Amino acid sequence: MAKKPLILVTNDDGITSPGIRKLIEIMNSIGDVVVVAPDSPQSGMGHAITIDSTLTCDKITVDKGNQIEYKCSGTPADCVKLGVREVLGRKPDLCVSGINHGSNSSISVIYSGTMSAAIEAGIEGIPAIGFSLLDYSWDANFDNLEQSIKKIVKNVLDNGLPEGVVLNVNFPKTETDFKGIKICRQARGNWVESFDKRVNPLGKEYYWLSGKFELMDDGKDTDEWALAHNYVSVVPVQFDLTAHQFIQKLTNWNF
Amino acid sequence: MAKKPLILVTNDDGITSPGIRKLIEIMNSIGDVVVVAPDSPQSGMGHAITIDSTLTCDKITVDKGNQIEYKCSGTPADCVKLGVREVLGRKPDLCVSGINHGSNSSISVIYSGTMSAAIEAGIEGIPAIGFSLLDYSWDANFDNLEQSIKKIVKNVLDNGLPEGVVLNVNFPKTETDFKGIKICRQARGNWVESFDKRVNPLGKEYYWLSGKFELMDDGKDTDEWALAHNYVSVVPVQFDLTAHQFIQKLTNWNF
Repeated sequence: MAKKPLILVTNDDGITSPGIRKLIEIMNSIGDVVVVAPDSPQSGMGHAITIDSTLTCDKITVDKGNQIEYKCSGTPADCVKLGVREVLGRKPDLCVSGINHGSNSSISVIYSGTMSAAIEAGIEGIPAIGFSLLDYSWDANFDNLEQSIKKIVKNVLDNGLPEGVVLNVNFPKTETDFKGIKICRQARGNWVESFDKRVNPLGKEYYWLSGKFELMDDGKDTDEWALAHNYVSVVPVQFDLTAHQFIQKLTNWNF
Repeated sequence: MAKKPLILVTNDDGITSPGIRKLIEIMNSIGDVVVVAPDSPQSGMGHAITIDSTLTCDKITVDKGNQIEYKCSGTPADCVKLGVREVLGRKPDLCVSGINHGSNSSISVIYSGTMSAAIEAGIEGIPAIGFSLLDYSWDANFDNLEQSIKKIVKNVLDNGLPEGVVLNVNFPKTETDFKGIKICRQARGNWVESFDKRVNPLGKEYYWLSGKFELMDDGKDTDEWALAHNYVSVVPVQFDLTAHQFIQKLTNWNF
């Protein structure tokens, strides 16, 4: 690509989170960067969009980088929609989301605001990648991700992505070098919830959702295996949710 | 099944919406019904879950049916999690979500709170079905859906569903009889957004998200084709989002 690529950056932890600041810094070395990101944390928002309320989108300056930035009152998917239609007025060459503070591997892809932004871009025909680090802390160390992110972005800009596919990239939490980048499938697993039941000062019961991830897959080709063995995991993700392999069987049902 | 099945009912339009009231009425004729549904509309919530805030879940009586009902402050996915762990304390035999006021065919499955509830149940290993009617109005006519819903539920209770698959059922808006029930794949299509930009009384700009669905698929095996031809569409939906067919190609990239 002779001309610098136009890159839309977003996330779900909010526009001031260290993860997106690092991603913006890396993208500034690759292309022209426009940021449209939530003005507040939107973790766990899945593919939510704002249809019963209004949205705001305001230009702001957060640091001295070359990027142009907008904070948006909506969800990550809203940010991509607004970014493409209202801010850019055209499809960017790439959309990157993250770097998320916390894992989006295995079934977490379903609940992930980070990945919903990438998927929304994919739906709109934009090559897109979500990046997440397996460290929930605000002061997580993003420094050793730069080289891998650049490699993955370069591959996507050079090769493109097939229609209907975006990438879900997760980084293990480590102080040492990664063993490499591994193409994986989404591991089978789920979150086993527990609800912490409490009583508020007025005597009314309420709950906090918490839970424990349960891996139900011992394959060595999964994202969970790769991450446990210090590889960067890359899962190609699709948004045609049809279980094609089950259509024939269903057709034999007695309707 | 000799014993009456235990059925968890939820939706995304809220516990008082006519669509869920009709679904509860139908389910009462099939099994023992427990309702855990949002206390307010949650359309477009995708697979959002509540992780940064608290949840309430309170028993209520809405009508004279045999069901037991709880209104929940969370999203549709929260309702299923709370319903299974806190209210029922065990997996129900079936989870049904809807009847949604409005279509969840094609790419709308991604944004759908109705379907996220069904998918959440599927993730937890519960046979699950989302039902939607192609009519957004509050006073939509749900009367002619009963026979088809019973047929589909009976098939799922008799045959089960394979692991990792739930059903997305959409009904055309019609005053006449349906031509039948058709097993389909998710049509390729997307929403082309337009943002209605306005100025509030304080002079600040804001947006309303709106858009038009664009079908990009002329296959006769899609949900959109079925609905346009007066069939009830049934799409088997999976939550392994891996684009398996692309793994080999990605492995050849230059990492």
